[in-house]
Amino acid sequence: MSTANDTNKTNNHPNRTNGTDDTDTTRTPVTVLGLGAMGRALAGAFLRAGHPTTVWNRTPGRADELVERGAVRADSVAEAVAASPLVIVCVLDYAASHAILEPVGAQLSGRVLVNLTSDTPERSRAAAAWAAGHGIDYLDGSIMVPTPVIGQPAATILYSGSREAFETYGPTLKALGDQAPYLGADHGMAAVHDLALLGFFYSAMAGLMHAFALAGAEGIKAKEFAPFTETIVGILPAIAADMAEDLDRGVFSGDQDNIVMEAAGIAHIIEAADDRGINTEVLSAVKGLADRTIAAGHGNAGFVSVIEEMRKASAKG
Amino acid sequence: MSTANDTNKTNNHPNRTNGTDDTDTTRTPVTVLGLGAMGRALAGAFLRAGHPTTVWNRTPGRADELVERGAVRADSVAEAVAASPLVIVCVLDYAASHAILEPVGAQLSGRVLVNLTSDTPERSRAAAAWAAGHGIDYLDGSIMVPTPVIGQPAATILYSGSREAFETYGPTLKALGDQAPYLGADHGMAAVHDLALLGFFYSAMAGLMHAFALAGAEGIKAKEFAPFTETIVGILPAIAADMAEDLDRGVFSGDQDNIVMEAAGIAHIIEAADDRGINTEVLSAVKGLADRTIAAGHGNAGFVSVIEEMRKASAKG
Ligand SMILES: NC(=O)c1ccc[n+]([C@@H]2O[C@H](COP(=O)([O-])OP(=O)(O)OC[C@H]3O[C@@H](n4cnc5c(N)ncnc54)[C@H](OP(=O)(O)O)[C@@H]3O)[C@@H](O)[C@H]2O)c1
Ligand SMILES: NC(=O)c1ccc[n+]([C@@H]2O[C@H](COP(=O)([O-])OP(=O)(O)OC[C@H]3O[C@@H](n4cnc5c(N)ncnc54)[C@H](OP(=O)(O)O)[C@@H]3O)[C@@H](O)[C@H]2O)c1
Repeated sequence: MSTANDTNKTNNHPNRTNGTDDTDTTRTPVTVLGLGAMGRALAGAFLRAGHPTTVWNRTPGRADELVERGAVRADSVAEAVAASPLVIVCVLDYAASHAILEPVGAQLSGRVLVNLTSDTPERSRAAAAWAAGHGIDYLDGSIMVPTPVIGQPAATILYSGSREAFETYGPTLKALGDQAPYLGADHGMAAVHDLALLGFFYSAMAGLMHAFALAGAEGIKAKEFAPFTETIVGILPAIAADMAEDLDRGVFSGDQDNIVMEAAGIAHIIEAADDRGINTEVLSAVKGLADRTIAAGHGNAGFVSVIEEMRKASAKG
Repeated sequence: MSTANDTNKTNNHPNRTNGTDDTDTTRTPVTVLGLGAMGRALAGAFLRAGHPTTVWNRTPGRADELVERGAVRADSVAEAVAASPLVIVCVLDYAASHAILEPVGAQLSGRVLVNLTSDTPERSRAAAAWAAGHGIDYLDGSIMVPTPVIGQPAATILYSGSREAFETYGPTLKALGDQAPYLGADHGMAAVHDLALLGFFYSAMAGLMHAFALAGAEGIKAKEFAPFTETIVGILPAIAADMAEDLDRGVFSGDQDNIVMEAAGIAHIIEAADDRGINTEVLSAVKGLADRTIAAGHGNAGFVSVIEEMRKASAKG
């Protein structure tokens, strides 16, 4: 997999300032700012890996369980930042992370800041400019897995921004997830990948909820239905790889599937859902893209041909 | 996996009228009506498995390649039906399959008809009533994989309707796909599962196209981006299983994720897509569901709590 390769490449870099020596990396003190569901998972993973871990949250009570497990609760952001050379922030959005970090710009100078908050590439780049102005070594990261996966080998976190910070603390950050590709010096790259992947994720999640609702309307228990979703999940990687080839070539064939057949299928889903009083707004939007693709003369091509409609801004209501 | 279990159960059924004896099943003559992309894949798989295969299509030229590979082209539907005890039909929708089958109801009497066309449960049940009226042993099927997977061990086709037909020809139908669960005597059950799964599939497909469009707008090649989608695909089965448990219990916790955080994430995707002139209709529909879930007081629960909005009919424009 490319992510693993990228990571290995970085680990073999000759200028690496930190070894894979566990006794060294486990000693690196870390600070985690923000203890929502994800911040708590991150701090927990650092604790499990043996790092002295200092935590802070706007609502201090959220640190209680971590403190029981050995974390140090800081009474202020400034105190939290002073405790470690590596500072992680993971809160709701960049407005929140900026509110937390702006007052401590001077204290962060000379430290490494890793922002694992999810937001737009524009805000990542703006935060990078702010950090540069304060002499802060800034790495942007995007967490691609739910909280229970944090700290496990399969956990993927994408990084971009300061290469030096990534090389210095990459081994430490592995405590959070083993899949840690570095996407380049442009701080916005992690967020670009994050938002593109999240768009796929939330569309799929809405599709899952629709599926449970439709099956449920016919008396099928969610637990009985869930294993069938694995069939769909199983075909997605090969389809994504095929789509990618078509997209890069810009040639869309209809040998295997055609969008007229697919629009008919989507219409059947909508009809069956409407008959059962189930919401069809998401699928109607998908059908709109397919219908406009057919109207534009691409009826003989496969689903990938909706890319042209996807590349057009939505009409404003 | 439950699909494999169901199939095994059926294969061990004491009343089975056909053995797993390959020399027997490979001799069963089959007829395939409809030679679109999928019909051709089905007929091709029967030919590879050594079945005498008769084919018919409204546009006869589509049979040419199959005839070269040994298929017999029938000049009429009646001739095609007369050639085999097992008749498969796979066309655009049930309006098309009815147009093909209605004139040959009498010839189909005493034969097994397997309709692999995708449509609503209501139309499957209506077709079953029509078949019963003509003494046709009728099995409904739903193909859950793209054409290149047909005939491979991973290929899943769901069946419901006549148990006798399934038991007699289940081994023959395995030439199309090894995963062949029987979902019960209600002919509509295959279609219910089909449409529920297709709703998930097309939502995910639209999400994939959005992801490629957003990454592409930042100069990322589709082929470089595609491997990252595997991270999302990889977390879906565990999430679907968790959702299923919550749905059956009817209790939605917010311990791991909460929909306020998720709505913020979706808003970031929409903002970044709008900034790049990329269509956001599908994601806006997802956000609408999330926003109404929060407005209904479920902000502290996870994404699964959108089920209540999903179970409400869409407002009609
Ligand atoms: N949970 C997941 O599965 C997941 C997965 C991947 C990525 N992420 C990303 O991780 C980040 C955090 O998610 P989460 O699940 O931990 O969210 P969460 O449970 O809702 O926690 C939100 C955090 O943000 C803090 N916060 C919000 N507004 C603030 C402000 N104005 N000033 C200071 N602190 C503020 C909250 O502090 P209080 O406790 O004081 O309210 C809390 O620590 C998000 O960007 C999310 O997209 C989450
Ligand atoms: N392709 C896939 O990946 C896939 C996957 C799963 C399920 N399916 C299902 O399989 C079925 C067939 O799909 P496909 O991909 O083969 O579609 P397709 O390539 O578009 O072929 C459509 C077929 O329907 C026939 N047809 C349409 N209207 C007709 C009518 N009024 N009378 C007689 N024949 C008519 C066409 O005949 P002509 O050649 O004369 O036009 C052709 O044989 C659909 O229900 C689809 O949902 C397809």
